[in-house]
Amino acid sequence: MELSSRGRLMPASPIRRLVPLADEAKARGLKVFHLNIGQPDIPTPPEMLEAMRRFEGPVLEYGPSGGLLETRVAMAGYLRGLGWPIEPKHVLVTEGGSEAILFALTALCDPGDEVVVFEPFYTNYSGFACMAGVTLVPVETKVEEGYHLPSRDVIESAIGPRTRAILYSSPGNPTGTVFTRDEVRTLVDLAAKHDLFVIADEAYREFAYDGLTATGVLDVAAEAGCLDLAILIDSISKRFSACGARIGFLVTRNELVLDSCLRFGQARLCPPTLEQYAAVAGYQQIARYVPPMIEEYRRRRDTVMAGLRRIPGAVCAVPEGAFYAQPRLPVGDADAFARWLLTGFSSGGKTVMVAPGNGFYATAGKGAEEIRIAYVLNEENLRVAMNLLVQAVETWNTNR
Amino acid sequence: MELSSRGRLMPASPIRRLVPLADEAKARGLKVFHLNIGQPDIPTPPEMLEAMRRFEGPVLEYGPSGGLLETRVAMAGYLRGLGWPIEPKHVLVTEGGSEAILFALTALCDPGDEVVVFEPFYTNYSGFACMAGVTLVPVETKVEEGYHLPSRDVIESAIGPRTRAILYSSPGNPTGTVFTRDEVRTLVDLAAKHDLFVIADEAYREFAYDGLTATGVLDVAAEAGCLDLAILIDSISKRFSACGARIGFLVTRNELVLDSCLRFGQARLCPPTLEQYAAVAGYQQIARYVPPMIEEYRRRRDTVMAGLRRIPGAVCAVPEGAFYAQPRLPVGDADAFARWLLTGFSSGGKTVMVAPGNGFYATAGKGAEEIRIAYVLNEENLRVAMNLLVQAVETWNTNR
Repeated sequence: MELSSRGRLMPASPIRRLVPLADEAKARGLKVFHLNIGQPDIPTPPEMLEAMRRFEGPVLEYGPSGGLLETRVAMAGYLRGLGWPIEPKHVLVTEGGSEAILFALTALCDPGDEVVVFEPFYTNYSGFACMAGVTLVPVETKVEEGYHLPSRDVIESAIGPRTRAILYSSPGNPTGTVFTRDEVRTLVDLAAKHDLFVIADEAYREFAYDGLTATGVLDVAAEAGCLDLAILIDSISKRFSACGARIGFLVTRNELVLDSCLRFGQARLCPPTLEQYAAVAGYQQIARYVPPMIEEYRRRRDTVMAGLRRIPGAVCAVPEGAFYAQPRLPVGDADAFARWLLTGFSSGGKTVMVAPGNGFYATAGKGAEEIRIAYVLNEENLRVAMNLLVQAVETWNTNR
Repeated sequence: MELSSRGRLMPASPIRRLVPLADEAKARGLKVFHLNIGQPDIPTPPEMLEAMRRFEGPVLEYGPSGGLLETRVAMAGYLRGLGWPIEPKHVLVTEGGSEAILFALTALCDPGDEVVVFEPFYTNYSGFACMAGVTLVPVETKVEEGYHLPSRDVIESAIGPRTRAILYSSPGNPTGTVFTRDEVRTLVDLAAKHDLFVIADEAYREFAYDGLTATGVLDVAAEAGCLDLAILIDSISKRFSACGARIGFLVTRNELVLDSCLRFGQARLCPPTLEQYAAVAGYQQIARYVPPMIEEYRRRRDTVMAGLRRIPGAVCAVPEGAFYAQPRLPVGDADAFARWLLTGFSSGGKTVMVAPGNGFYATAGKGAEEIRIAYVLNEENLRVAMNLLVQAVETWNTNR
């Protein structure tokens, strides 16, 4: 009795696979500062929790497979507010953005088909691709270039006969990069030329700093006259600090894609019911809730960068968005370094946990000196955590 | 730009695909009695809703990918109470039993691999198989035999070189059949002989009538000395009338399978957080909550059978469990009949919705005269609904 190939090859999450080591460190009495996972500490809007509490029953029923109408109305209204041509019928509510990605890959790709991604990329794209039997074809982006896209020709050379889509996140996880309008337009144009879809993961849309605005795939595709190729992945997890709600969205004007994804959705019956009411309440609070949150993350980003600048040899462009940085550190094997942070290092009874950067690459060997930092701690803790990191790099390099 | 084969071929749910017709019927002012979907009307234990209300925040966080420890403890305690050798570490919390099935198929099968099922079977097995690229190999069971299993030889003849598992539900959806201990033992023995897994969907475990007790795969596999081949799928949806919670379980003593499924789970981050607290509260109420619920369903089953007996030519053994019946009706094309119930029939401003039976078969043409009835209405409404069905069959046969 053996597992399937994909059952064996499915990658463990680089964000979560060191958790047993963190648990052991905590059992030894250490305080562990978590920079490994994008779990925000910002309070969820209380109105969202209240919306769930208001549910009186008597029966916690299945909702529609495509999501509650009021939730689809709220999401469509939000997107229309951005100027995009979206009605509730273009919105499918999913079990987190995660499920939306899996549905999109499955609807577009048969086993062996290819999807172009830009590495480093959100690590779980690898997991969903493995589950769906899809091959990710990575195009390299570089820390020295702030992880912005290479030239159109370089991207085009990754497109082959089995390519079905281009998948990216912007604002980017793990890079913090916000693609320019020209970059998004290049991807849309390439997709139009080669009969591909563009799957844009915009879960961090509002998380753009220094006056930047993230460009939406629906906006650019509408401008380019090819709305049918655009598939938007979205989520309330980060926007409303509600990761445990498991509410995401797949939004597209392409009826065939939406219908296919709805049939996938029918198989799993429905997304959680109460959290969809919470999502509605969240969107009602967005104007009040989001701007100060973004300002808070901007300050944290500056704290992370101030820390990184104190590490001689560290390379990292200033992240433009999301709440991640993917610096290259002068530590040789960053995976070993990340383990050692939990097993061999401490200072004043404290240590810090980061995600090894190689887990965000499809190409073996790449990202070996990188880590991902999620700046989801308050400034005071973040300062402590960055001090620990600075000190750890120094100790690591002294000892090896 | 085309969809993938699976995106095109993914079946619409036979339970849900007539919903647009039902919506139109309601828009015309008709009252529609829903026997199509297994959405219980029994109140969810208020303690479960209260457990969710008690969550004070401030942050609705990700839980662990494998589920909250307290939820795994509650589930393992429940299974140990049945006498089965299960610890919390053998339990993975999933987004409904649905996700548990998809994880199991994906962990065991590569595209093109086969899984033996017994038709009619829970329709969404087809959907998950399509998503995972798995071929379901159906073994026929017959309404005249109460949908019990055929001989061991017949089942064995469906096993081929690419077979990876046997998948079944008992108590059965849509059949209402409770496999005997001998039947489960036959499946476990065949799996052991041919190096297969047994995936047992026991979401309806307590729903067994007339003194029957559903046999658990873990129990039989332990007895047969081959616990490693047993994968239990479970759910709180029916047991606690909490379908909208989306909390299910994959339980196995096979470490490789569990580890693989946990990695799938890491990709989608976690099941919904608050509903896991609700599940804990549910299991605390099980002794009080479940027995009267089962007695209620037993009465409803009798009401359904009394109705079916009034349809000349209808064939249906008395369902032994779950809350479904899959009768053969003398209507020729049951799919057309089910549509006509929503488009051409009404009596006193009312009609009834059922699921066409062919959607529960993998073999084209089978189940053409069958429907699935979910008896999830209170007795008064169920009596009205069955009267409508009796009348509808008569009208249908008079007119055609």
